[in-house]
Amino acid sequence: MFSISIPRSDLDAELRQAIVDGLPIGPETEPHLAAALRQTLDHPGRLIRARLVCEMGRAYGLAPNIARSQAVAIEYFHTASLLFDDLPCMDDATERRGLPCVHRTHGEAVAMLAALSLINRAYARLWRSFADLPESRRSSTGDYVERCLGLTGLVNGQSEDLHYDSASRCSSPQRIAAGKTASLIRLSFVLPALTGGASPLEIRSLERLADFWGLSYQILDDLKDIFQPSSQTGKTAERDRSLNRPNLALAIGPARSFARVERLLGLGDRVLRHLKCRLSSADYLGEVRRRFHHEIRSLQSAALHPVE
Amino acid sequence: MFSISIPRSDLDAELRQAIVDGLPIGPETEPHLAAALRQTLDHPGRLIRARLVCEMGRAYGLAPNIARSQAVAIEYFHTASLLFDDLPCMDDATERRGLPCVHRTHGEAVAMLAALSLINRAYARLWRSFADLPESRRSSTGDYVERCLGLTGLVNGQSEDLHYDSASRCSSPQRIAAGKTASLIRLSFVLPALTGGASPLEIRSLERLADFWGLSYQILDDLKDIFQPSSQTGKTAERDRSLNRPNLALAIGPARSFARVERLLGLGDRVLRHLKCRLSSADYLGEVRRRFHHEIRSLQSAALHPVE
Repeated sequence: MFSISIPRSDLDAELRQAIVDGLPIGPETEPHLAAALRQTLDHPGRLIRARLVCEMGRAYGLAPNIARSQAVAIEYFHTASLLFDDLPCMDDATERRGLPCVHRTHGEAVAMLAALSLINRAYARLWRSFADLPESRRSSTGDYVERCLGLTGLVNGQSEDLHYDSASRCSSPQRIAAGKTASLIRLSFVLPALTGGASPLEIRSLERLADFWGLSYQILDDLKDIFQPSSQTGKTAERDRSLNRPNLALAIGPARSFARVERLLGLGDRVLRHLKCRLSSADYLGEVRRRFHHEIRSLQSAALHPVE
Repeated sequence: MFSISIPRSDLDAELRQAIVDGLPIGPETEPHLAAALRQTLDHPGRLIRARLVCEMGRAYGLAPNIARSQAVAIEYFHTASLLFDDLPCMDDATERRGLPCVHRTHGEAVAMLAALSLINRAYARLWRSFADLPESRRSSTGDYVERCLGLTGLVNGQSEDLHYDSASRCSSPQRIAAGKTASLIRLSFVLPALTGGASPLEIRSLERLADFWGLSYQILDDLKDIFQPSSQTGKTAERDRSLNRPNLALAIGPARSFARVERLLGLGDRVLRHLKCRLSSADYLGEVRRRFHHEIRSLQSAALHPVE
């Protein structure tokens, strides 16, 4: 999420290990699939979503193993979505997390099967994490997962992203980002809160915070696509312009994009204050908040001094 | 599963409707994705797995709506696996269920997103269908789903199928069929039984029956790939030979393949007798069993009188 990484913590190391351990690759695993999964699990990215889940889990009183289980599941969903997004028929990316994309090393079919292994595993883990909940809460958490990931969330957002028509008024980059990017951030905030029995009002506040931050993140990502070389982002640069993908910074210009991020983060701060009581010990949220500002400054500097 | 269709029943019509209704396509659904899903849901195939689930559900005392919910979920998983299998990087098929494949009409990316919508929906439905179970049974059914669909089941089988090396002794067409084809048949037999509280012994028997039938089905499918034109199967013919895919009939010859199917069905009959008490009213199983024989006879006739 951020090019200036948040310092790694013990929790980070624990999560990295849990991600590797969470999908046991056995002697029966087909060797190409095993190799693709090893590459994927050994390079889990910056774990923003997993750390958000752990933080929310703590705030809502989840047992640490339950929160970690959900954190790993959400990272699996996220990683699976990246494996699909990078395919030639989607973003046709060449690099991800500083390495050649999985489909370029192991082939498209294997990249898809690796993604499907992650999705199946993620669902199994999530279900286990709901096991002790009362029935009504189990059903609502299960439904919420589909709302974020399925036809009303991530999958639909990705389809809107692919069929974006910059001339049409029906789809805006912001709307697409809400489906494509904010869905998993929402799930990271809301799933542990739902599991922990948060009130509907709190859930609504967390959804708003997730949307403000998810959209902010997407706008910064759009700006990075323009201003940062691959060597800094670890993924293919300038894809949006070349593929005519929705990019708010291309649509409304960098200056208005920076202003919009500031406004969204300001709205997020109001929600954070509102949730202060519950989230008083949520240090990681403060850290993420500060990193947003570092990121903005770094991108503003890149915009002023572009590298040719 | 069978080229001679089993006559449609009221249950068939109900299932077809449930499959369409089960994934609501709304005004917010991205139009290309909506069109791909409509094509998919309106042509659900022969519903063998769904009917097996309903039959097992009745045998194990499940409420009809629970059994139907699981039946629809398993058809969604099955359909999703076909959408992926047909892609250019996998089987590169052109026809499915008598129509051009979804990726040929709507593009590869949309075919994948349609498959992912089905998978997410299937998990949400299954989860709901476990809602009233005691905790231990919920966990075991959830784990069983992943075992059949994930890295130890369908996904691994598909990867073995793709990387099949007819010269290697490590992978046999039969072993691959066990992962790729039998997994979903197993799930169709076992999931309703687990939900209904079947004993471990019964589960083991159902798994064996599923494996015997799943392998029989795969061998007949391999024979069809050789002897039947697309117009009868509704899918692309002779893919296995051209793509060097595992095909038992190509590996050991038609005569031995027919003998092996007979042997497997005989073993299945022994299991059926063993389960007779529980499955006494399972008419559909008898129907499937008879259709296997029709199928064998029809293929033997096609093998004797090949169409040039």
